[in-house]
Amino acid sequence: MTQLANLTAMEVDALTDPDGGLNLTDGHARLPLSAQQAGIVARIPEMFAAASRRPFPEIEAEAHTAFLRAVGQHRAPIGTGRILSCYSSTLATDIVARALPRGSRIAVLHPTFDNIADLFRTRGLDLVPLPEEALLAAEWPAPPVRAVVVTHPNNPTGLVTPEGHLRSLAEHAARHGQIVIVDASFRGQVRDAQYDTYAVLDDAGADWICIEDTGKLWPTHELKIGLLAYSERSTLPIHRAFSESLLSASPVVLQLVAALARDWTDGGYERARATIDRNRATVAAAVAAAGLRLADPASQISVARMELPVDGPDSGELYEDLVTRGVHVLPCAPFHWADPEDGERFVRLSLARPPATVEHAARALAESYTHLSSRAVAPVA
Amino acid sequence: MTQLANLTAMEVDALTDPDGGLNLTDGHARLPLSAQQAGIVARIPEMFAAASRRPFPEIEAEAHTAFLRAVGQHRAPIGTGRILSCYSSTLATDIVARALPRGSRIAVLHPTFDNIADLFRTRGLDLVPLPEEALLAAEWPAPPVRAVVVTHPNNPTGLVTPEGHLRSLAEHAARHGQIVIVDASFRGQVRDAQYDTYAVLDDAGADWICIEDTGKLWPTHELKIGLLAYSERSTLPIHRAFSESLLSASPVVLQLVAALARDWTDGGYERARATIDRNRATVAAAVAAAGLRLADPASQISVARMELPVDGPDSGELYEDLVTRGVHVLPCAPFHWADPEDGERFVRLSLARPPATVEHAARALAESYTHLSSRAVAPVA
Repeated sequence: MTQLANLTAMEVDALTDPDGGLNLTDGHARLPLSAQQAGIVARIPEMFAAASRRPFPEIEAEAHTAFLRAVGQHRAPIGTGRILSCYSSTLATDIVARALPRGSRIAVLHPTFDNIADLFRTRGLDLVPLPEEALLAAEWPAPPVRAVVVTHPNNPTGLVTPEGHLRSLAEHAARHGQIVIVDASFRGQVRDAQYDTYAVLDDAGADWICIEDTGKLWPTHELKIGLLAYSERSTLPIHRAFSESLLSASPVVLQLVAALARDWTDGGYERARATIDRNRATVAAAVAAAGLRLADPASQISVARMELPVDGPDSGELYEDLVTRGVHVLPCAPFHWADPEDGERFVRLSLARPPATVEHAARALAESYTHLSSRAVAPVA
Repeated sequence: MTQLANLTAMEVDALTDPDGGLNLTDGHARLPLSAQQAGIVARIPEMFAAASRRPFPEIEAEAHTAFLRAVGQHRAPIGTGRILSCYSSTLATDIVARALPRGSRIAVLHPTFDNIADLFRTRGLDLVPLPEEALLAAEWPAPPVRAVVVTHPNNPTGLVTPEGHLRSLAEHAARHGQIVIVDASFRGQVRDAQYDTYAVLDDAGADWICIEDTGKLWPTHELKIGLLAYSERSTLPIHRAFSESLLSASPVVLQLVAALARDWTDGGYERARATIDRNRATVAAAVAAAGLRLADPASQISVARMELPVDGPDSGELYEDLVTRGVHVLPCAPFHWADPEDGERFVRLSLARPPATVEHAARALAESYTHLSSRAVAPVA
């Protein structure tokens, strides 16, 4: 396979395709608003007025409280000044990458969304992969690794770092003076990932950074917040890096997040999960017709990987053929940022789409795969 | 003066001051909505619905067209794929800094908002100052300077780069293979700065990058867009850097920008200018009582600098005393990013605030200055 663009560039291509087509690339929620969510969106003009009237710190603390409670993070350091609201989790990640000493060796989960590795590398950090298998075996990297980055749950596999494993990592890091960095951008979607990460990390005496994200949960058209929280043990120049990137998140978006988080606690989570679960089952059934199966049947996040048998077309061919059918998915090589070949036999579909869209795309994928497979075994003319 | 935090950090302190107080630090518009603007904000829920229904490229092109026309930029490359919508102009600047080859020598206007210099330096670029006097004398830096960054109008001085000077710079840059980078974040506020920059740059055969910003114009609580536009001559990996930073701006915010830009064309500009002009006159009158005067009386942007006589208190002392009086302003040393001492005798006040706020703050500044001056000359007990 020739070198691929990064995953976000492929997502941009899908979003801006002049021929339209079905976009199942990015993990953002592209769904109709629920009745409850529509009621909240209708109140945005009031939130605008309140943003002028109320002090920013009060609006921000309310959003942090509502969101972090909704995802089980009761020991997060609300009100201490150690939770920074950013435009996005990507920006929060970049701020962390900038604050780490240039040239440091950093272990990053593998595979994971390539953007995480790219942002760290671009800031001059020296990356080593932490395979999912090593995480599950609690085999933690020794110094000179300075920080360990875990995506929890992981994207694209859906792997949840079990609580005991995070504790083991945190204790290891505390012993060795390492920093534990948890990117919990998909956490809101998965109850199993909502044990109190902050309690685990603090109780182990670790130095830590956590990134939270509202951007994967709700169909809010990029009105979202990435949170960057950090340990009181941290000595990194995080505030300086933050102030190089932004003055503040929007107090309108913070109020929107607070209201949607309350709805998430009040049945919104279950409503959203029902759609995702239904769409995952739809995909599994549709691709089974082509002899394909889900790579991560236990995953609970809003994307699904398909595994392609070694004797058939690879993900690059499938991606290209699907584009001609007006369907955009992600080939998974770039997720394997340290060894792209490992990912060539996977494609990723987003499930946070209307059921009819997901069904259409999954059928197209099955047809495409069957078509490419038959062509591959046909005798050369 | 001891080393100051960066300007944005001081703006964050003002925004998050637990005691409240008057915040005249940042250049963002913190004003009540006009009746016309309130009518637009009331339509945000409709914009939410339209963002699901309409293709993103259509929404984005409409916003680019409305905004760039409203600020006189008729030859901007709308529809070519060479205008990228970012969360903010800061993020657009960082994307440019990342796309430039590490280690390149870059000339940056001096003084200017320190964040511009900081973002370039943090990406490993080698900065040299381009004094405002050199710009006005059309003395352009020779290679090995690889790019010249001009803030137009400049912040904090309000200096507009005259059209002939930009043409001279563009022709110089074209001859020497340099890139002209124009940060036009404050352009929307000043008609004199709204000659068609894109026409000047393209007609001179220059390679160029322009950054535009909606964030300084309207009281939209950080719902804003930074535009990054670039020449068809550009060979920099700008798309790659963009896709490392974001997938897309919000189609809701893009629609908000389009509507506010139309209002800007339809009387909004004049309404906003009347407030700024009135506030500038208020400040000039209030500080005259303390023997102070505006440093840039011809400036038209939404901030005003006061010059402090050499024999009185400096900006650091004044800043500290004003904080105790519940008023936040910016001491100007950090704007002089290459030589902070040059800025010690200036403070900057934001004018995009309600008139009563500006008047109260300007009076407090005059009282504080008078108090500190009298203390300085009093005999030591």
